[in-house]
Amino acid sequence: MSKVLVFGHKNPDTDTITSALVYANLKQQLGMNAEAVRLGEVNGETNFALTYFDVEAPRLVEQVATEVSEVILVDHNERQQSADDIDQVRVIEVIDHHRIANFETSGPLYFRAEPVGCTATILNKLYKENNVSISKPMAGLMLSAIISDTLLFKSPTCTAEDVAAGEELAKIAGVDAQVYGLDMLKAGADLSDKTIEQLVTLDGKEFSMGNYKVEIAQVNAVDTNDVLSRQVELEAALRTKIAEKQLDLFVFVVTDILNNDSVALVLGDKSTAVEKAYDVSLDDNKAILKGIVSRKSQIVPILTDTLSTM
Amino acid sequence: MSKVLVFGHKNPDTDTITSALVYANLKQQLGMNAEAVRLGEVNGETNFALTYFDVEAPRLVEQVATEVSEVILVDHNERQQSADDIDQVRVIEVIDHHRIANFETSGPLYFRAEPVGCTATILNKLYKENNVSISKPMAGLMLSAIISDTLLFKSPTCTAEDVAAGEELAKIAGVDAQVYGLDMLKAGADLSDKTIEQLVTLDGKEFSMGNYKVEIAQVNAVDTNDVLSRQVELEAALRTKIAEKQLDLFVFVVTDILNNDSVALVLGDKSTAVEKAYDVSLDDNKAILKGIVSRKSQIVPILTDTLSTM
Repeated sequence: MSKVLVFGHKNPDTDTITSALVYANLKQQLGMNAEAVRLGEVNGETNFALTYFDVEAPRLVEQVATEVSEVILVDHNERQQSADDIDQVRVIEVIDHHRIANFETSGPLYFRAEPVGCTATILNKLYKENNVSISKPMAGLMLSAIISDTLLFKSPTCTAEDVAAGEELAKIAGVDAQVYGLDMLKAGADLSDKTIEQLVTLDGKEFSMGNYKVEIAQVNAVDTNDVLSRQVELEAALRTKIAEKQLDLFVFVVTDILNNDSVALVLGDKSTAVEKAYDVSLDDNKAILKGIVSRKSQIVPILTDTLSTM
Repeated sequence: MSKVLVFGHKNPDTDTITSALVYANLKQQLGMNAEAVRLGEVNGETNFALTYFDVEAPRLVEQVATEVSEVILVDHNERQQSADDIDQVRVIEVIDHHRIANFETSGPLYFRAEPVGCTATILNKLYKENNVSISKPMAGLMLSAIISDTLLFKSPTCTAEDVAAGEELAKIAGVDAQVYGLDMLKAGADLSDKTIEQLVTLDGKEFSMGNYKVEIAQVNAVDTNDVLSRQVELEAALRTKIAEKQLDLFVFVVTDILNNDSVALVLGDKSTAVEKAYDVSLDDNKAILKGIVSRKSQIVPILTDTLSTM
């Protein structure tokens, strides 16, 4: 049987890396020759989870069409967030919890998107629907993804299904979700050893919004000043990205994981979109976004709507 | 609670009409204020099923944004096959078994597409996943949709899941699938009272393929000559559609439901795409397509691939 690669988005986060591993595991048990791969570096938070549950990171790849003709996407569907040569392979499945955009197939496929906080919450269901039992490490990885995407069940994207899945999975994984979760989030929020390039690249995602190209990067911090004390260098790095990728807007979001607010550092010709969208004024290119922690539900939709009328 | 409209594609077939009725029924039982509507006339086959199981046809609408702000799509996702004002409402769910194209949302949604022969096969699962029991009329409608889309389980699009769902649903509906199914298909294949305009419009679907606009219409017949004896008038009608809609290609497919072959009547600047795709020569604008009965799996993908390189 030909191999099928399973992978998440570029600039991978914990949900993307673990969902690739977990779904490849499920598909293997269902008889598919599936292998999880990744399109970028493993971040500190994900590394904490992989080490804790003793699971190896997926293999790093840059292209997929050189190896396989069929792939499965997890935790994303938009072409520009996927492998560079995604147009040269057939997407046979997608498991995701994001908006659908820039995605097109020539034939039918299995596409399962649900408006829940985390891809892992859907994967937990898929094990059940297929009557496959969940091992301790796979439960630990799914729990880690849910904690990461919902900021320990506190993000507005967190649904009752995510909470229920988290409780079930914590039992199988044999951990206290609150204790384990805070340790994991803190590991991810330790930005002290990150270069400026890493800060602006890690977890950056590009979007088409109206007629504009927008990049939104997000980092978690225990204290937002840990990051924003390096504003001058950050701005220089953002300006380079804007020029390289011909972006109309770059929103760099620093999220306070203890207080659940964010500070946005905003550059680009369409900076006023952020002011309009949140009714704030940028001061020194920055604005506090009270209660905003979720790129997916609190930033992408409102910016898309705002930029569609600009 | 605000009302949500549930509907399938334009030029509705049995799967589209019954899926709207059935999914609205499921959502109502789950507490949603859902109403099934339709975007076009009910065909003879669908009418047979509705009459047999004593269910009223959904209400006909032309626009949806005048009534509601949220909708659920069944049996389609492509914008040009949906309500004309689909861009003015929020799509909160999609249940489908077709390719994904020309579909984009600004936020996450429930999107469930599976590569099975019929939307009803997915709906049958959704009742189970939600622990809702299926009434006799709803089972009858789902069975009718499966028989229609799989030509009584004989189309290459028919999967083991469709067959299993059909068996389960026939039991609940209290009918013999083969006997009921052939009666229903024959009711749909009775084209004697159809005008030429009805023949070329009923079940017509428009697609973007590569840089071209293509319309594919399909009718079932017990004898393809019942339809093709009217070729001169058919061609005139197709040429009018091509001019009106600025199509590059119109493929009118007459499917022999007893022998499971089709005859294609092909007009438009890109007619050679059909010759290339099936390695046939058009004779008097027609070609026999041996063993071809499924637009979705045997026509749309291969024509999309062919036209993408033209």
